[in-house]
Amino acid sequence: MAQSPFEWIDEQARARRRAGLVRTLRPRPADSALLDLAGNDYLGLARHPEVTEAAARAARTWGGGATGSRLVSGSTELHAELERELAGFCGFESALVFSSGYAANLAAVTTLAPHGSLIVSDAGNHASLIDGCRLARGTTQVVAHADPDAVRKALHTRTGPALVVSDTVFSVDGDAAPLADLAAACREFGAALVTDDAHGLGVLGDGGRGALWAAGLAGAPDVVTTVTLSKSLGSQGGAVLGPAHVIDHLVNAARTFIFDTGLAPASAGAALAALRLLRREPERAARARAVATALYERLTAAGLEAVRPHAAVVSVRAPSPEQALRWAADCREAGLAVGCFRPPSVPDGISRLRLTARADLTDGQLDRAVRVIIEARR
Amino acid sequence: MAQSPFEWIDEQARARRRAGLVRTLRPRPADSALLDLAGNDYLGLARHPEVTEAAARAARTWGGGATGSRLVSGSTELHAELERELAGFCGFESALVFSSGYAANLAAVTTLAPHGSLIVSDAGNHASLIDGCRLARGTTQVVAHADPDAVRKALHTRTGPALVVSDTVFSVDGDAAPLADLAAACREFGAALVTDDAHGLGVLGDGGRGALWAAGLAGAPDVVTTVTLSKSLGSQGGAVLGPAHVIDHLVNAARTFIFDTGLAPASAGAALAALRLLRREPERAARARAVATALYERLTAAGLEAVRPHAAVVSVRAPSPEQALRWAADCREAGLAVGCFRPPSVPDGISRLRLTARADLTDGQLDRAVRVIIEARR
Ligand SMILES: Cc1ncc(COP(=O)(O)O)c(C=O)c1O
Ligand SMILES: Cc1ncc(COP(=O)(O)O)c(C=O)c1O
Repeated sequence: MAQSPFEWIDEQARARRRAGLVRTLRPRPADSALLDLAGNDYLGLARHPEVTEAAARAARTWGGGATGSRLVSGSTELHAELERELAGFCGFESALVFSSGYAANLAAVTTLAPHGSLIVSDAGNHASLIDGCRLARGTTQVVAHADPDAVRKALHTRTGPALVVSDTVFSVDGDAAPLADLAAACREFGAALVTDDAHGLGVLGDGGRGALWAAGLAGAPDVVTTVTLSKSLGSQGGAVLGPAHVIDHLVNAARTFIFDTGLAPASAGAALAALRLLRREPERAARARAVATALYERLTAAGLEAVRPHAAVVSVRAPSPEQALRWAADCREAGLAVGCFRPPSVPDGISRLRLTARADLTDGQLDRAVRVIIEARR
Repeated sequence: MAQSPFEWIDEQARARRRAGLVRTLRPRPADSALLDLAGNDYLGLARHPEVTEAAARAARTWGGGATGSRLVSGSTELHAELERELAGFCGFESALVFSSGYAANLAAVTTLAPHGSLIVSDAGNHASLIDGCRLARGTTQVVAHADPDAVRKALHTRTGPALVVSDTVFSVDGDAAPLADLAAACREFGAALVTDDAHGLGVLGDGGRGALWAAGLAGAPDVVTTVTLSKSLGSQGGAVLGPAHVIDHLVNAARTFIFDTGLAPASAGAALAALRLLRREPERAARARAVATALYERLTAAGLEAVRPHAAVVSVRAPSPEQALRWAADCREAGLAVGCFRPPSVPDGISRLRLTARADLTDGQLDRAVRVIIEARR
């Protein structure tokens, strides 16, 4: 036998070790005592009994899996109900549920950017949107972050269909896209606006109806958005929301829809229960935002450098990858889980702690979190 | 406002209508009376009480969702347990669980085909492997279906790392890849073999340990395989299995792992319960194969044209897309759900009924299925 075909992998691993950038999985127990400011369970619904009981009920009623792709055997009435209520809640005509937000983003970008089209993509977009651009038949032009004039300049060059693609709330820094201005730019040029509201749904807009609702763009004939079911809705999965004819197009053309098993019933059930809970308790959205603002204000008052949060993500700058890692480890030592984002998974090479606000954090927990972060600072 | 940016979509929709190729979702009720030969629940485990109760228990214990990506907050001890048992069962050193089989395939191909590498990809490969090739930095060469000599010819041209990518059981026709011969070709040239055992796990190999086990390739240092949790294991999700250093590489480099929320606990729990059930009842695998063979033999004896099944998928040729559609509709009318594959989702343009064998089909159900398909033939 020849030498291992994977020798190049070992070289890369050695380079990662030298650079201190090795990532390791750390499975958590069910009863972790850590205070969690790392997950994206913004509304504190992932472990809400109504949500987990709905998951349990759905598994019992519909089975452990959907058994096939949505066009073969994998569409249940539960999926249809979730799609109806999700579209209604967010103010869009139609919705299509996917097995993940990642898959929904791949679908939205690839199916709406045919051969000969132009995709204008924000430099800060999520990996799944970027992969969507790479897979699409259209040509991608990456433009400066949150810069509508750069978008206009790019749209000037278009000849075929065009779409502007942007996160609504950027996942790393929690800052906002200039949605109204982006929509105006799109309309000047007859382009479509495709957004990813993964971090807006449940947090922004009237009672958590999302960033598009907040911007008065929900249901517009030239706007499509994706959402995830895995953050504010405490479950797994994703969806594309938009005009009915666009959703029909996705049913017929989206590879991550046609060639992927439908979302597991338990996840569909959990997301639907979370959505209904949010409808009944709309104050959860405002509370998540308030906790984020409080975190930001208290940390910056103590001299830390952070980005003013638009939704529930608070990003705090760390001096270096090593110090970010040690800072996060010291927080963990003191009972607090925080996210630690380092190269290469941050596009700009800047390391940060990524904190997430949760609507169910008590004031006491908030105090504790702030104290720990400040005391462990690097 | 300018004209709708989605007018080109309506044109495509009209063309689809004219060609009779419109796809529509048909949500099913929980208590459908249809006999299901369309889904991929090969072992009949999706609705097994042990599986659905495990899903329910996992949701209660761990929550409705994983709350974050696997490297942040989304790894639970349940995920680790599933990875350990899955690797052990299939005879591989390590496993990494993804939110879908689609995501696992994107990860395996993109992370193992760096810039400068050659990917040799079977023309019949699944959409998710094809998308993996498109996303990868390496160069893809598509070779004739199930043709090791074509693979050898392609590998002759390689200069950097090379991998050969193939389904083990092809999803549309249910035919087998020549695994032993592909592995031999890989070894002649120092290439890696990357397979997708979505339709082999649970059906092929000793007690359902999969196609790689059956071929004596499980655990080989130059072999990586993906599996799905959504077919034989009756759940949702996917996994990559391989040498530990390769799995570590994926943890550090796979975008659909790093930037995707972890698999929902209910789905992880369901898949783990199904795996344990299969270990206890290994005869389910052989039964699924026997049902497939019986289906094939009885349908071809009645003059239908079908592909000899290697696992649990039985593909029956239809004269045209329209007739395939009517054939499937007539089966449904008579109480039988079958898959209907038509262009553009079949690469060769041939329409077929796609039947799936299930280990829990009774002889009476098998008789009925065969009778209905023959009577409804076109
Ligand atoms: C902005 C953004 N879009 C999409 C995704 C992917 O969604 P999911 O994890 O549900 O697949 C994420 C995070 O995971 C995200 O942060
Ligand atoms: C061969 C093959 N690979 C991968 C997949 C994708 O797996 P999943 O549906 O679990 O995402 C499928 C079917 O869905 C398949 O048939």
